[in-house]
Amino acid sequence: MKKVTVIGGGTGSFVVLSELKEHDVDLAAIVTMMDSGGSTGRLRDQLGVLPPGDLRQCLVALSSAPELWRKLFLYRFENGDLQGHNFGNIFISALEKVCDDYDTVIDTASYVLATKGKVIPVTYEKTHLCVEYESGQIIKGEGNIDENNSERTRIKRAFLEPTVDVNQRAVERIDESDFIIIGPGDLYTSIIPVLLVDDIAVQIKKSKAKIIYNLNLMTKAGQTSNYKASDFINDLDRYIGRKPDYVIANNGSISSSIIDWYEDHDEKTVENNLRSDSFEGTIIEGDVINRTQIEKNLSDKLTRSVLRHDPIKTSKLLLEIIS
Amino acid sequence: MKKVTVIGGGTGSFVVLSELKEHDVDLAAIVTMMDSGGSTGRLRDQLGVLPPGDLRQCLVALSSAPELWRKLFLYRFENGDLQGHNFGNIFISALEKVCDDYDTVIDTASYVLATKGKVIPVTYEKTHLCVEYESGQIIKGEGNIDENNSERTRIKRAFLEPTVDVNQRAVERIDESDFIIIGPGDLYTSIIPVLLVDDIAVQIKKSKAKIIYNLNLMTKAGQTSNYKASDFINDLDRYIGRKPDYVIANNGSISSSIIDWYEDHDEKTVENNLRSDSFEGTIIEGDVINRTQIEKNLSDKLTRSVLRHDPIKTSKLLLEIIS
Repeated sequence: MKKVTVIGGGTGSFVVLSELKEHDVDLAAIVTMMDSGGSTGRLRDQLGVLPPGDLRQCLVALSSAPELWRKLFLYRFENGDLQGHNFGNIFISALEKVCDDYDTVIDTASYVLATKGKVIPVTYEKTHLCVEYESGQIIKGEGNIDENNSERTRIKRAFLEPTVDVNQRAVERIDESDFIIIGPGDLYTSIIPVLLVDDIAVQIKKSKAKIIYNLNLMTKAGQTSNYKASDFINDLDRYIGRKPDYVIANNGSISSSIIDWYEDHDEKTVENNLRSDSFEGTIIEGDVINRTQIEKNLSDKLTRSVLRHDPIKTSKLLLEIIS
Repeated sequence: MKKVTVIGGGTGSFVVLSELKEHDVDLAAIVTMMDSGGSTGRLRDQLGVLPPGDLRQCLVALSSAPELWRKLFLYRFENGDLQGHNFGNIFISALEKVCDDYDTVIDTASYVLATKGKVIPVTYEKTHLCVEYESGQIIKGEGNIDENNSERTRIKRAFLEPTVDVNQRAVERIDESDFIIIGPGDLYTSIIPVLLVDDIAVQIKKSKAKIIYNLNLMTKAGQTSNYKASDFINDLDRYIGRKPDYVIANNGSISSSIIDWYEDHDEKTVENNLRSDSFEGTIIEGDVINRTQIEKNLSDKLTRSVLRHDPIKTSKLLLEIIS
C-alpha cells in the first residue's frame, strides 16, 4: 500500500484526508501546530495548551467512527461561557491536561474517533508563526497574519518564534513516504508553518517521495495577494529547496457572483501560468470546485473563503497519480 | 444476580456505585436531574441543556474504562472561558446538542466510559426543585437551596416547577429491583428531587424491593438543620409512603477538629435515635467514615462537606444485606 502523507491543516487537509481515507492508501497527516486564532487561540492563551484546531480537523477527517462522533467533534457552542469554542478543541485541550505526554493525547483522540491513518503534530513544542513583509512590518501569530488582509506588500520571510524541535515521528513519516501531498490550504498560515520546523524541509527535499501540490483556487489578501501559480511554486521551492513533481490546478468554471464576492475581499482566482513559466513537473488540470459547499459558506459569517476543493473530485485526480 | 438500584446523585451515589460495581450485582443508578448550581447550572442556563453534573458523577462511578477516561471526565478547567467547567459536563452537554434523543446521550457516554451498570435520568424534561420553609420563604433552584445555609426553619414541602414526566426506564427499573439504595446524599437536594417525579414514589412504595437507606453523617444547614436519624426517615416516609427496611448508620469516631469545622458551618453529627424512636427496620451500624478523603476535602475551597462515606466500608455493609 502506498504511503501518502498530507502536509498542512485546517479545511484544506480535511478535504483531502476525508476522501482519501476511503481508498486503499496508507495515510498520514503532518499537522501545523501554529494556529493562534479563534477558539484555538483562546484555548492556547488561557489554558497554556498546544493549539488543538488543526489536529481536530485532521482527526475528524480521518475518522471512521459513527457520524455522531464526527458531529460532536465539529460542534461549536453558540452561547454562554463556551460560545465560539468547538467541542473537539475542548476535548483535545482537556486531554492534554490529564495526559502525561502528547502522544497519549493523539492516541486517545484517534482511538475514540477510530481514525484510519495517523495524525502527526509537526512539533510538540509551543511556538508562533511570524512573517515579515516587504514593507518592513512584522506580524506575530498565525491568527493575526490571517486577519492582516489590508497588507499589500509581499511576505519577505516567515519564521517561528521560538524555534522548536521537530516531532521525530514526522521526520520518520516523511522518510518512508511514497507521496507527499501539500495543500490545499493557505500558503503562509497552513503549509509553510510546517516547513519552518527544523528538519522537515530538509527531509522533504531529500525524500524519495513525489510531491503533489494542490494549487490554491484563490489568492489570499495580505498573504498571497496577486499571486500566480508560479509564485506559489517559487515560495514552496524557497522553503523546501525543491519544486513539486505534480501540480493539481483547477480548470472548472467559477461563477461571476463568486468572483465578485472575492473581489470585494481583494482576492481573485489564481492564474495558472505554469506552462509559460516552464515548470518542469506534471500539471494536472481538472474541475475540483465543491459547488455544494458554496451556498453553505456564503451563509456562514465566520467563513473567510467561499470556494473549497471538492473532496471526491480532488481525490480522483490525486489517486490517478498515486495508484 | 441481584438487581440493585441506587437513587440520588452527586458524591453520595458516586461512593456507593464506584465500589459496588466491583462486585457481583446488577447495578443501576436513577439520577436526579434538578441540579442548578455551579458549572451544571451555568450550562443549563446558557445552553438550554439538561443538567449534566449528577449524570456525569454516576457515569464515572460506574466506569470500567482506563483511569485516563475517568480523570478526563472529572477534569475541571482552571482558567479562561472554561474556568470552573468540568469536562464531563461539557461532553454531556455537547452530546445533547448533537444527539436526536437523550437515550443516545446516555448510551454514548456509557459506551466511552465502559460503564458497568445503567445510568437512568429520572426524567428527560427540564424542571427546577423548589422548597417552602416553615418561615414561608420559598426558594427555587437546587443551587440556591444548597446555598441557603442561613435558613433556620424546616422545609415544609418540596416540589418541582414545572412538574415533569418520569423516564419510563426508571419506573421499569424500580419495578424489577431487588434492592433500592437511597443515599448517602443531601436529603433535599439529591434524594427527594428524584422522589418528586411522578410515579417514582408510588413505584418504590409498591415495589417488592427492600429499601436500604445510608443515613447521613452530618446535618446540612438550611436543609436538615438539627435533624436526628428519625427526622430523615420520617421525611423519606412522607415522600415515599414507606420507611426503609434497612438503615446503615455510622458508629465510627469523628475527630473533634472535624466536629469543630462543621460547627463553624452550623452543622453537626446526626444522632442515631432510631432505636428509641421504635424504628421497625433493621439498623446496621459500622464505621463508614472515609478518613483518607478528609484532608483533601479540607484543602478544597469548593467543598461544602468534609466528611464522606468510605466506598469500601459502606459497600461491605451493603453487601452483607444484598448478598
